Amino acid sequence: MQTLYVITTGGTIEKVYQEQTGSLANLDSKIERYFRLLRLPDLRVEITHLMNKDSLEMSDADRQVVLEAVRHKLQQPAPVVITHGTDTVVETGLLLKRSLPGLGVPIVLTGAMTPLGFEGSDGLQNMTESLLAARLLPAGVYLVIHNQVFPIDRVRKDRENARFVSIEKE
Amino acid sequence: MQTLYVITTGGTIEKVYQEQTGSLANLDSKIERYFRLLRLPDLRVEITHLMNKDSLEMSDADRQVVLEAVRHKLQQPAPVVITHGTDTVVETGLLLKRSLPGLGVPIVLTGAMTPLGFEGSDGLQNMTESLLAARLLPAGVYLVIHNQVFPIDRVRKDRENARFVSIEKE
Amino acid sequence: MQTLYVITTGGTIEKVYQEQTGSLANLDSKIERYFRLLRLPDLRVEITHLMNKDSLEMSDADRQVVLEAVRHKLQQPAPVVITHGTDTVVETGLLLKRSLPGLGVPIVLTGAMTPLGFEGSDGLQNMTESLLAARLLPAGVYLVIHNQVFPIDRVRKDRENARFVSIEKE
Amino acid sequence: MQTLYVITTGGTIEKVYQEQTGSLANLDSKIERYFRLLRLPDLRVEITHLMNKDSLEMSDADRQVVLEAVRHKLQQPAPVVITHGTDTVVETGLLLKRSLPGLGVPIVLTGAMTPLGFEGSDGLQNMTESLLAARLLPAGVYLVIHNQVFPIDRVRKDRENARFVSIEKE
Repeated sequence: MQTLYVITTGGTIEKVYQEQTGSLANLDSKIERYFRLLRLPDLRVEITHLMNKDSLEMSDADRQVVLEAVRHKLQQPAPVVITHGTDTVVETGLLLKRSLPGLGVPIVLTGAMTPLGFEGSDGLQNMTESLLAARLLPAGVYLVIHNQVFPIDRVRKDRENARFVSIEKE
Repeated sequence: MQTLYVITTGGTIEKVYQEQTGSLANLDSKIERYFRLLRLPDLRVEITHLMNKDSLEMSDADRQVVLEAVRHKLQQPAPVVITHGTDTVVETGLLLKRSLPGLGVPIVLTGAMTPLGFEGSDGLQNMTESLLAARLLPAGVYLVIHNQVFPIDRVRKDRENARFVSIEKE
Repeated sequence: MQTLYVITTGGTIEKVYQEQTGSLANLDSKIERYFRLLRLPDLRVEITHLMNKDSLEMSDADRQVVLEAVRHKLQQPAPVVITHGTDTVVETGLLLKRSLPGLGVPIVLTGAMTPLGFEGSDGLQNMTESLLAARLLPAGVYLVIHNQVFPIDRVRKDRENARFVSIEKE
Repeated sequence: MQTLYVITTGGTIEKVYQEQTGSLANLDSKIERYFRLLRLPDLRVEITHLMNKDSLEMSDADRQVVLEAVRHKLQQPAPVVITHGTDTVVETGLLLKRSLPGLGVPIVLTGAMTPLGFEGSDGLQNMTESLLAARLLPAGVYLVIHNQVFPIDRVRKDRENARFVSIEKE
C-alpha cells in the first residue's frame, strides 16, 4: 500500500449550489464523495479538510496554515495532493516551494474551473490526474490540471481561456 | 403523434456556470440537451426559447410576452409546458389563468431548485413529470414539480425548504 | 402525505453488470439508490422487493406471487407501481386486471429497455413518470413508459424498436 | 502541442448494451464520446479504431495487427495509449515489448472492468490516468489502471477481485 496525503482548502472544485440563495459557496468538503467514484486498490489516502475558501479570499495567514499542514504531514514523508482555488494556487505553490527547500516528495496542487458534480466539470479529471502524478513525479512542487504538469514556478492562469499555460522561468 | 409546446423563459433550471466569473447566469437555453436524454417516441415537441431571465427580474411586460406567446401557440391547441424561475412562477401562472378564460388545454408550469446538470438537480425530474402531466391533466393552469401537481391558484413557494406547498383557495 | 406502494420484480431496469463474468444479471434490487435521486416531499413510498427475475423466466407461479403481493397491499388501498421486465410485463398486467375486478386504485407497471445507471437508460425517466401517473390516473391497470400511458389491454411490445405501441382493444 | 496516438481494440471498456438482445457487445468504438468529457488543451490525440473485440476472442493474428499498427504509428514517434480487453491485455503487451526492442516512447495499455458509461465504471478513470501516464513515463510498455502503473512483464489480472496485481519479474 502507498500512502498519499490529500489536503483540501476549498476553491471552485468544492463549491456547492445553495438553493435558498441561488448562489455558490464553499460550505463543506465534497471531495470524499467523488473519491469514492475512483478505484484506488493499493492507495491509502489520508484526507485533511483544512479550510473552505475561495482562493481570492485566502490571506497570507491562510497560506501559512497550508504550509504548516504540509510540514506536519511530511514528518512522515509521502506524496501530497492539495486542492485549491485556481486564482491563487500558484501563489500558494510558490510559498511551498520557497519554504520547503529539501523537499523529498512531490507536492501536487490542483483545482477546477467548474465545481465537481456540475455538467462539464473538470474536477474529477484533475483529481484523477493529480493522484497519478503524485506517484510518478520526482520531488518538487507542481500544478497538475487538464492533462498538463507544470513546475509551480513556470505556470500562470489564463483566465480568459479557463486554463493554465507555461511561462518561461524567471 | 401528440404535439406539445414547450416555452422556456429562463430561471434556475437553465442557469449555467460561467468559468470566467465563477458565477451563475441565464445565458442560453440548455433544455434541448436534456430533452435528448428522454425517450418521447410519440411526442412532437415544439420548443420556443422566449427569454432567459431569472424570474426575480421578470417584469409585468415580460409576463405579457409569455401570455402572448401562449396565445399565439393556442391558435393550434395543444398542451403547453413552460419552464420558469420558481420565485415568480406562480405570479406568471395566475396571469395566464386570469387571461385565458376559455382555456381548452392544460398549461403546466415548472422549474427547478438546482440547475439542470448540477449534482442533485431536480430539473430533469420536473421536466419528465411536466411532460407526462401535460398529457394526463384536464384543461387548466398548473404547477408540476417534485411529484406534485398544484392548481396554480393553490400553491406557494416554501423557500426555506426549497419546495412548493398547497394553500387554501382564496 | 400520500402513500404509494412500489413492488419490484426484477427485469432489465434492475440488471447489474457483473465484473467477474462480464455479463448482466438480476442480483439485487437497485431501485432505492435511484429513488434517492428524486424529490418526493409529500410521498411516502413503501418498497417491496418481491423477486429478481428476468421477465422471460417468470412462471405462472411467479405471476401469482405478484398478484398476491398486490392483493395484500390493497388491504390498505393506495396506488401501486410495479417494476417488471418488459418482455412479459403485459402478461402480468393482464393477470392483475382479470383478477382484481373491483380495483379502486391505479396499478402502474413499468420497466426499462436499458438498465438504471447505464448510459442512455430510460429507467429513471420511466420511474419518474410512473410515480406521477400513479397520482393522476383513475383506477385501472396501466403500462407507463416513454411518456406514454397505455391501458394494459391495449399495448404490446415492439421489440425491434425497443418501445411499446398501442393495439386495438380485442 | 503534444501528439498522442490512441489505438482502440475493443474490450469491456467499449462494450455497449444492446436493447434488442439484452446483451453486451463490442459493436463500435465509443471512446471518442468520453474523450470529449476531458480537457486536453495542449494535446493532439490521433485515434485509430483498429478492431472491436472481446480480448478473449483475440487471436495471435489480431495481436500482430496491433503490433503492426503500433509500428506504423511509431514511424513518427509519439506516446501510444492502447485500449484493450483486460483478460489478454498482458499477452498483447508482452508481444509489443518483445517485438519493439529499441522502443523510444511509452506505450500504455489500459482497459476497464465495467464499460464506459455504466454505473461504477472505471473506464474514464483509466483513460484519464493513461493519458497522463503517457506524458510522464519513460520509454517502455506499461499497464495503467486503477491509479497503478505496472511494467508489462510484472503484472497479472486478479480476476476474482477485478483488479491487477504485481508479480515478480521472471
